[in-house]
Amino acid sequence: MSTSRKRPYPLAGRTEATPPTVITFADTELTIGGEGVTIIAGPCSVESYEMLSETAQGVRASGASLLRGGAFKPRTSPYTFSGLGVDALEMLATVRAETGLPVVTEVIDTRLVDTVAMYADVLQIGARNMHNYALLSEVGRLRKPVLLKRGFAATIAETIMAAEHIMTQGNMQVIICERGIRSFDTATRNLFDVAAIPVLKQETHLPVFVDPSHAAGRTDIVAALSNAAIAAGADGLIIEVHPRPPEALSDADQSLSLAEFDALMRGLRPFVQAAGRHLVMPAPAPRPTQADPVS
Amino acid sequence: MSTSRKRPYPLAGRTEATPPTVITFADTELTIGGEGVTIIAGPCSVESYEMLSETAQGVRASGASLLRGGAFKPRTSPYTFSGLGVDALEMLATVRAETGLPVVTEVIDTRLVDTVAMYADVLQIGARNMHNYALLSEVGRLRKPVLLKRGFAATIAETIMAAEHIMTQGNMQVIICERGIRSFDTATRNLFDVAAIPVLKQETHLPVFVDPSHAAGRTDIVAALSNAAIAAGADGLIIEVHPRPPEALSDADQSLSLAEFDALMRGLRPFVQAAGRHLVMPAPAPRPTQADPVS
Amino acid sequence: MSTSRKRPYPLAGRTEATPPTVITFADTELTIGGEGVTIIAGPCSVESYEMLSETAQGVRASGASLLRGGAFKPRTSPYTFSGLGVDALEMLATVRAETGLPVVTEVIDTRLVDTVAMYADVLQIGARNMHNYALLSEVGRLRKPVLLKRGFAATIAETIMAAEHIMTQGNMQVIICERGIRSFDTATRNLFDVAAIPVLKQETHLPVFVDPSHAAGRTDIVAALSNAAIAAGADGLIIEVHPRPPEALSDADQSLSLAEFDALMRGLRPFVQAAGRHLVMPAPAPRPTQADPVS
Amino acid sequence: MSTSRKRPYPLAGRTEATPPTVITFADTELTIGGEGVTIIAGPCSVESYEMLSETAQGVRASGASLLRGGAFKPRTSPYTFSGLGVDALEMLATVRAETGLPVVTEVIDTRLVDTVAMYADVLQIGARNMHNYALLSEVGRLRKPVLLKRGFAATIAETIMAAEHIMTQGNMQVIICERGIRSFDTATRNLFDVAAIPVLKQETHLPVFVDPSHAAGRTDIVAALSNAAIAAGADGLIIEVHPRPPEALSDADQSLSLAEFDALMRGLRPFVQAAGRHLVMPAPAPRPTQADPVS
Repeated sequence: MSTSRKRPYPLAGRTEATPPTVITFADTELTIGGEGVTIIAGPCSVESYEMLSETAQGVRASGASLLRGGAFKPRTSPYTFSGLGVDALEMLATVRAETGLPVVTEVIDTRLVDTVAMYADVLQIGARNMHNYALLSEVGRLRKPVLLKRGFAATIAETIMAAEHIMTQGNMQVIICERGIRSFDTATRNLFDVAAIPVLKQETHLPVFVDPSHAAGRTDIVAALSNAAIAAGADGLIIEVHPRPPEALSDADQSLSLAEFDALMRGLRPFVQAAGRHLVMPAPAPRPTQADPVS
Repeated sequence: MSTSRKRPYPLAGRTEATPPTVITFADTELTIGGEGVTIIAGPCSVESYEMLSETAQGVRASGASLLRGGAFKPRTSPYTFSGLGVDALEMLATVRAETGLPVVTEVIDTRLVDTVAMYADVLQIGARNMHNYALLSEVGRLRKPVLLKRGFAATIAETIMAAEHIMTQGNMQVIICERGIRSFDTATRNLFDVAAIPVLKQETHLPVFVDPSHAAGRTDIVAALSNAAIAAGADGLIIEVHPRPPEALSDADQSLSLAEFDALMRGLRPFVQAAGRHLVMPAPAPRPTQADPVS
Repeated sequence: MSTSRKRPYPLAGRTEATPPTVITFADTELTIGGEGVTIIAGPCSVESYEMLSETAQGVRASGASLLRGGAFKPRTSPYTFSGLGVDALEMLATVRAETGLPVVTEVIDTRLVDTVAMYADVLQIGARNMHNYALLSEVGRLRKPVLLKRGFAATIAETIMAAEHIMTQGNMQVIICERGIRSFDTATRNLFDVAAIPVLKQETHLPVFVDPSHAAGRTDIVAALSNAAIAAGADGLIIEVHPRPPEALSDADQSLSLAEFDALMRGLRPFVQAAGRHLVMPAPAPRPTQADPVS
Repeated sequence: MSTSRKRPYPLAGRTEATPPTVITFADTELTIGGEGVTIIAGPCSVESYEMLSETAQGVRASGASLLRGGAFKPRTSPYTFSGLGVDALEMLATVRAETGLPVVTEVIDTRLVDTVAMYADVLQIGARNMHNYALLSEVGRLRKPVLLKRGFAATIAETIMAAEHIMTQGNMQVIICERGIRSFDTATRNLFDVAAIPVLKQETHLPVFVDPSHAAGRTDIVAALSNAAIAAGADGLIIEVHPRPPEALSDADQSLSLAEFDALMRGLRPFVQAAGRHLVMPAPAPRPTQADPVS
């Protein structure tokens, strides 16, 4: 039938008639997908309440409407900092209560999905776990948005199929995130596949995000990649920001300072407009008395 | 010394103090590099005078200010169409005389450099010949601009070094062109390395162009890649356009129709503005009596 | 200290003085690592008791000394055959009891590690899960050998680091398996990185295996890749064999028939000798009365 | 017709009925292709008569039957040593006269083909020039063997097509040489695609060689890659050897000493035998009075 979604992705695929998926958040105007462009920002890892709160206030003031922050970090070496775990989740919830920014954090273990989901507003599946089908199924049982990062060497088709794995479990709120793939040139940490954005927009109705920080691996080109992502049709960005990047416990080379992030956001606005879109504004900060560490 | 250009590219490298190279064309306002964004368009191959003239009139009307067209085509198979050779060069010169559009055409053999240079305003070195140092030296002896395409699997550093090969022979008018590199995903013909643009802009003072047609290998995303290229800081684009793409003798899958190119240009303008730049206008068409096949 | 193992792999790394890890199996002469070359063979997926038993008898007769067979299959699409699960584990145990061949099977979920470990003699971590650190840690708590496959786009260093993740949990019996990485040429399914073998042998004391079936993705070159692997210093191979490849439910294109596997083994022997090594013989088949589905 | 050669390579392709191409050299027993395995060795660049002569005597004694040596070197940077040119060609001819070893040397410019052909017994097309069709055509007009190296990022199909370019000009004596392709892992200089050997042997009747030196980029694994190449079916090897590698003006990291080359050759013989083949012996050294610098 001509209006059926495209095989081989019966759930994630689209035809011209399929409306875009728009993800909403209870009690706010915040959206992901559709007409708006939504910015997620925050530190690679949650290192302390203080740095998280400072970062959240800063990125909110510059126009970010969700807060990222790693609690459980997948690390190549078992001997490097792997996150503060549940303590970090608590800090994220506290800072959400302060700022009104929904939080995005990664889950790396099927057994921790319920715990992370108790705190997170959006669960992230990292590039290293895009092919971890047990984990995809487990977040598929939730009814919370999932930010799914493309694997290091995953094709676009495999990435959509990973979204399909989540969706077959009933969770239709999937955001696909391009973050660069492996290539031979060491000038950048990964090779940002900007063409994946229009290809994904043609193939699927899901929101398409970009992580310019991991794509670049160096701060000096993050703004240029952000502009390019929006010009190519991305629905949003997820950007690493740290109040004092040289002190960051992870991804120091690619984390923007608050001032750099503010400059990026100012430079981004004309491109959002050129794309015929608008920046999604952060939700109003809750009243102080509403603070509640666990949502 | 702090104002010296960066090693290991004494000629192509830049420091913060190095002004950008701006290429000019005699008797016109046309520029490549600097503040403006310059668009080159035309067919993959020159197939006949009629199709070339029709294409040139069309792309000029939409805002292209130089005409591309292949006369000598490097082809993977020795059994496919390899261009009309000198006849094509003559047609390019005739159409230049009609439209005022300077012509860009590829040279693939050291022994043909003088012949091609007699007709071309800009000589193109194709991706397959980026490491052909004999050819780089030979075009280095000219005093005409060279559009140097990045090789299939060349690093950014190697690409700048290829420009350096040309410049050591005295020709300082080199345009570096990103056109996608080889990768594992067959969704696009090549993988457009949009991050190469800001990296190149940091490393060199030379103009940086993008060929979104070869990067994409499919027409439906050429406009999105063009927008992304400008947003990332490119100084111009070189785009394949054919009056009847299905009939094209080469690159039919990636050639835009004149209407598609016109739509692309209309969509591009807001991004050029967002980048704080302007589109370089085509030179006025010469008076009819000035037609002269060889410049 | 000169005899300490190499950083940054304190457990997996080696110096010239470190002896190679040799994995043994209770009550048999079977070894993995050291002087011998050990062959694992069997179907991609366990499809039935009959086909598994037929395959096991066949590969044992040709010189394989362990049996592979997938019970839980990670599949790119959620709509394709994903294995028979625990039923397949039961069949593997039954066939082990018949043939004396220890069984190698993949685990893809932390929550299934204990179940799989109850049946398997060697647990496989597939390429898709090489960066799944939760799973690596979980198999690290076992005291059973783990066959760790290199990720699609993992560097050699990252692969050794994944082994280190397992070993930090106390399980020192890790076999590293090269199986090809992603590249741009579609002539083979993956690009077999034969150079990884001598590099791994220099960097680590762990046994190094090769999966020529997944590297090739086509049967006609599996034997050539097997010979090359042994010549480059591999300690063993894991090869897909199916009694009737065209009927295979997965990996039909790369599964050898029993006759093809027998021919491969006959062709391999001279290369094992040329390498100054010997083929590890299968353990004797147990007496019929010893059959016990769960070891 | 069932006996016709395979399309799309009418000249380079093969069917099961096509006999392998065997290249012979006048007045000697020397062959390339067919049953024997032929070893080419020598320095990356010819640096002086003395070092070339010393290398030639050494590699001949160890079993090499042709001498390699660069006279014109394609170099990424225009500021590095680019060979001694015609002087190096003269030295090659002198050493050939002394040792009886035919010489293999690279040509990088169409205008130098006749000059290089006057001295060389085999002309090499380097990886950087595999897509330089003007150069391919020019060596196609010769009636001397051409060693054609696979490009950095050329597919196997494109490599055979480059051979076809040469053969359409009438020169049927083409040797295809795998030398590693670009990949993301920096553990080796290039990624040696050992699977290309059996694929090439299936697709074409031309001899297939391997350059393990450029593939590895490090001396410690050249012998392992050489053994693997022969086990996979290669017809020969081309290996970089220098009498004092640390002093080499180019490729110092990957050049074997004479002692290392001798050890490699001793280790290689059992693999040549295991492959059911024999090492092609060097031609006898000519009588001293025959010395003549230009053949």
